[in-house]
Amino acid sequence: MLIGKVTGSVVSTRKSDNLVGNKFMIVDILEHMQNGAKQIIAIDKIGAGIGEYVLVAQGSAARIGTGMKDAPIDAAIVGIIDDGTGLE
Amino acid sequence: MLIGKVTGSVVSTRKSDNLVGNKFMIVDILEHMQNGAKQIIAIDKIGAGIGEYVLVAQGSAARIGTGMKDAPIDAAIVGIIDDGTGLE
Amino acid sequence: MLIGKVTGSVVSTRKSDNLVGNKFMIVDILEHMQNGAKQIIAIDKIGAGIGEYVLVAQGSAARIGTGMKDAPIDAAIVGIIDDGTGLE
Amino acid sequence: MLIGKVTGSVVSTRKSDNLVGNKFMIVDILEHMQNGAKQIIAIDKIGAGIGEYVLVAQGSAARIGTGMKDAPIDAAIVGIIDDGTGLE
Amino acid sequence: MLIGKVTGSVVSTRKSDNLVGNKFMIVDILEHMQNGAKQIIAIDKIGAGIGEYVLVAQGSAARIGTGMKDAPIDAAIVGIIDDGTGLE
Repeated sequence: MLIGKVTGSVVSTRKSDNLVGNKFMIVDILEHMQNGAKQIIAIDKIGAGIGEYVLVAQGSAARIGTGMKDAPIDAAIVGIIDDGTGLE
Repeated sequence: MLIGKVTGSVVSTRKSDNLVGNKFMIVDILEHMQNGAKQIIAIDKIGAGIGEYVLVAQGSAARIGTGMKDAPIDAAIVGIIDDGTGLE
Repeated sequence: MLIGKVTGSVVSTRKSDNLVGNKFMIVDILEHMQNGAKQIIAIDKIGAGIGEYVLVAQGSAARIGTGMKDAPIDAAIVGIIDDGTGLE
Repeated sequence: MLIGKVTGSVVSTRKSDNLVGNKFMIVDILEHMQNGAKQIIAIDKIGAGIGEYVLVAQGSAARIGTGMKDAPIDAAIVGIIDDGTGLE
Repeated sequence: MLIGKVTGSVVSTRKSDNLVGNKFMIVDILEHMQNGAKQIIAIDKIGAGIGEYVLVAQGSAARIGTGMKDAPIDAAIVGIIDDGTGLE
């Protein structure tokens, strides 16, 4: 998993049917956890707010681990870090 | 997921049987969402047009989340961003 | 998926039993589709020739989408691009 | 798999239900095994301590190989290296 | 798949139960096949020796394609290249 900070969200009205009801959060990945990309879009099942540090799971874990195995999801917020200020 | 802009498409006449009927879109990935590559080829089940900003799912999510679990697909357009102009 | 040009092949006599009968093609990935690596080894079920531009699927799509779900394959040529000359 | 050194852990009180009971370790990846990122967060089923060199499996292997196939986990510590001092 | 040269191995006494009996080889990835990382740890089911050029499969292919679908393995040596000297 990687850790990032939630900095916003994007809206998609026309989307895959099995994505309806999901929020698409913009997550700024901590610099030393970046594989190149500075940002990733992740669905949020935990209720993370802007500015919170979150744990993001990628790949099949994001679908299956959130109970959405048939949805086209490859990244999900799966936890909120209690104190992320020292991590950057 | 990542966000990119649809900039074109490619044609493949000789291809895997279970890819027949799909469109292969060229997606320019937003700079801060690139893991190195500036472009990716994604199938499109939503009907995205040239110039639109789209949400792309990768990996098994692209197959299973689009109802094409037996097709050799590793990237799919799964949503169109309502207003992507501020994202670049 | 990514696009690359077939530039050669490699021979492996001692290999996993469920790889027997496959060709291992060297694919030079188009520069703007590279995640770091300039080349990848992909199996070929389409019959691509040296110099042709091809569509490559990676991950589980390469196994499952080519009907070889039990083989240790993580990249496969799944289409030949009709006209790839303008893509580089 | 990759090898890294355990350097700490993070706490997440609000998290996915199927992550409860897991430890989230910060692993500093050996420089020549980094795909960009210097650190990764991995769950630990082996009982690795701070300063130990560990083997990390990523992707579906982290879920399925640790008996947690329904959890949103994409990286797991699956072994402790006996003598990792010469690897850096 | 990628090609690399076997340069050594690592020993892990404390490890996941379903990894027992496997060898963990250090593979130096050919420069033009690197996605950043210069080395990867792969299990070996073929019997590759130090100095040999090998084909490495990653992701779920490494588990399922080697008959170890329940093991936390994300990279496996699946073939030995007959003549790898011209590839570097």
